[in-house]
Amino acid sequence: MLDEIAARRAACTDSFHGNGLTTTADMVATIGADVEADTYGDGGVVADLEKEIAELLGKPAAVYLPSGTMAQPATLRVHADTRSSRTVLWHPYCHLARHELEAYAQLHGLVGRAVGEQSRLITLADLEAVAEPAAALLLELPQRDLGGQMPSLDDLFAQVSWARDRNMAAHLDGARLWEASAGYHRSPAEIAQFFDTVYVSFYKGVGALPGCCVAGPEDVIAQVKEWRRRLGGTLYGLWPGAASARNKLTGALAEMPARMDHALAIAKAVEDVPGVRTVPAVPQAPMMHFLLSVSAGRYAENAKELAEADKFWVWPKAMETEDPDVVRVELAVGSATLRHDPAEVANILARLIA
Amino acid sequence: MLDEIAARRAACTDSFHGNGLTTTADMVATIGADVEADTYGDGGVVADLEKEIAELLGKPAAVYLPSGTMAQPATLRVHADTRSSRTVLWHPYCHLARHELEAYAQLHGLVGRAVGEQSRLITLADLEAVAEPAAALLLELPQRDLGGQMPSLDDLFAQVSWARDRNMAAHLDGARLWEASAGYHRSPAEIAQFFDTVYVSFYKGVGALPGCCVAGPEDVIAQVKEWRRRLGGTLYGLWPGAASARNKLTGALAEMPARMDHALAIAKAVEDVPGVRTVPAVPQAPMMHFLLSVSAGRYAENAKELAEADKFWVWPKAMETEDPDVVRVELAVGSATLRHDPAEVANILARLIA
Repeated sequence: MLDEIAARRAACTDSFHGNGLTTTADMVATIGADVEADTYGDGGVVADLEKEIAELLGKPAAVYLPSGTMAQPATLRVHADTRSSRTVLWHPYCHLARHELEAYAQLHGLVGRAVGEQSRLITLADLEAVAEPAAALLLELPQRDLGGQMPSLDDLFAQVSWARDRNMAAHLDGARLWEASAGYHRSPAEIAQFFDTVYVSFYKGVGALPGCCVAGPEDVIAQVKEWRRRLGGTLYGLWPGAASARNKLTGALAEMPARMDHALAIAKAVEDVPGVRTVPAVPQAPMMHFLLSVSAGRYAENAKELAEADKFWVWPKAMETEDPDVVRVELAVGSATLRHDPAEVANILARLIA
Repeated sequence: MLDEIAARRAACTDSFHGNGLTTTADMVATIGADVEADTYGDGGVVADLEKEIAELLGKPAAVYLPSGTMAQPATLRVHADTRSSRTVLWHPYCHLARHELEAYAQLHGLVGRAVGEQSRLITLADLEAVAEPAAALLLELPQRDLGGQMPSLDDLFAQVSWARDRNMAAHLDGARLWEASAGYHRSPAEIAQFFDTVYVSFYKGVGALPGCCVAGPEDVIAQVKEWRRRLGGTLYGLWPGAASARNKLTGALAEMPARMDHALAIAKAVEDVPGVRTVPAVPQAPMMHFLLSVSAGRYAENAKELAEADKFWVWPKAMETEDPDVVRVELAVGSATLRHDPAEVANILARLIA
C-alpha cells in the first residue's frame, strides 16, 4: 500500500501542496557545497545555524536537534526539573499528546494535562480553571489541527502572563512559527518574546532536511544540549541537516507574506465551490483545512484518478470526520502552492468531491 | 581551540588514520543518486538496508537508528521490560557507562553493573561472581578501549551461555563488528549468532554518514522501533544515512581482511621503534592502541609540527595515562591506513615521540 502510493506519487509531475514534489536529489542539493562540519554538534555550520536562529528569535542561545519529538519533551523536562511540578498544560491537539507514543511520560516523567476543548483554541478561562502548580504551558502557533488558527496577540499575552505569574515556563511549539509570523504580521522575534523557550522546525514550510532548533536562555539550552546527547541526537556529524536549514531558511522566510496572501486568495476562491468549506473560514496563517462533502472511499478514488490521469498529486487519503459524508484535508501553502492560481486549486477540490 | 584544530586538519593532505581526510562533499557523495525515500523510517532505502543487515547478521529483523547512543540503551530496556531486573552487566569501559551522560539510567531506569577489571577483558569467573538476576549481558567486540582485544570464541560462547542459562539477554555492542569479523576470521553472522541482539555502526570503519542498526528477534526489534520514535529518532526521512550506509558497506566489508593483515604488519614494523608499544602486542582486529613514551605536551607539539610542516594529519592530542611520560593513541586501520606502508607508519610514530 505504502509502496503503491509512493509509486503513484513518483509518477506525478505537479502538485499544489507545500513545497511540491521534491525528489531525494533535490533534498541532497539543499546541503550545498563547502559545508564546514561540526564535531558531535560543536562548531561548523551547526554553530552558525544556532547563532542565526538565536538572533532571529531574539533569544540568548539556541541548540540544533534532529527532531521535534526529541526537542520538545526534553525542553519541557528541563523546565520541570527546576520547578515543583512535572505537569505541562497543553491543548488536546498537542503533538506530544497525539503523535509521540507518550515519550514525555515514558522518558521524562512528565504529566500532560489537556486544557480547553479539542474543537477550539485555549482561552484564558480554560487556564484559570487550573488549580495545580504546573511546570509549563505549551502553546502551538498556529494550531495545526485546527487549520492553523491562532489567538489574538492580546489573548496570547494574557495566557503567557497567566502562566508566568504562576512560575510556569511558557513554551512555544513553533513548528510553523514562520507561518505564524506571516499570519500575525510580526517578526519571529516579536512572537518569540512571549515565550521562555521556542521550538522551530526546518523541514516543513522551510523545505530543508529534517531538523529543528530550540531557543531560550543559556542555562536552559545548555541542559537541552545534554538531553540531546542522552537521547542519541548528538550525532558524530549534524552538519547535513543544519547546512540544509541554513540554505533554505532565508528564501522561505522571504516568501511567507506571499504565501499568506495566497492562502487568503485560495479561501476566497473556494467560497464558490459547493461542498467545500475552509477551516478557518478566513486563514490565519499560510495553511488551512478543507472540509469536503464526500465519503472517504470516493475521495480516495478521485485522488487516485487525478494522479493517474492528470499526473497531479494531491493527498492520497483524507482524514475521516464524525460525519461519514465529510472528510478533511490540510493544505500547507508553500512554494508549490504559489505556482497555482487560486481558481485552479478550487477546480481541483471540486473534482475531488465529484 | 576546536576551530584552530579544524583549520589545521583542513590544511592537511594526508593521513593514515581510518578512512582518512574525508570532506563533507565526499560524505554527501556517499548518499548516491536515485535514492528511494522512506516515510518516517518506513519503506524505501531504509527498509532495504534493514533487510540487508538482518540477512548479513542472520537475524529475523533489524531496525535503522540515527545513533548508537539511541540504539543500545533502548535495546537493553526492551530486554529489561520483559524480565524481573533492570540491571545490565557490562565491562567497565562500556560506552554506555562512559560517554552517554547516564542515559541508560536517566531515560530508561536501567542500572549498569560493571564486571571484571578495567584493564582486561571480562572472564567467565567475573560473571560467576554475580549473584543478582540481571536482565542482560552486554559484550563489546572488539573492546575498543583495550586496543581492540577480543576473547577467544570458546570464552565468548561460555560467557553468553552463562547469561542465557540465567534468562539474561546477550547483547553485542558491535560498533566494530565488521572489524571483529576480520579478527576472528568468521562471518558477521557467525559472531552474531551468539547474541540475542546486535548493534552495528556505519560511520566508523564503514565510512558512511552517522547511523546504525540493531538486529534481533521480530518482537524485540518492533519494540526498539517504538523507542526510536519516542526518542525522536524516527525522522520524517532517514534515507540520507541509510543510503550512505548501503553504498559504503559492501566495499568496507570486502576490505576488512586486508585491514587485518595490515594491522598485523604495522604492529610488526613498530616492534623496532624504541619508545613505542602496541596494545595488544599482536592486534586482534584491524585496530590497535600505541603507548608512546612522550609527555602529552611534547606529543601535541610534534603532532602540530607534522601537520604544519608536512601537511600530515595525526591525532592532535593523545590520551594521558597514569604515567606522565607515556601517552596513548588509537589507530583505526581503514582504507587510508592501507595506502601507507607499515614502515611509514612506524616512522611517523617515531617522529611523534622525538
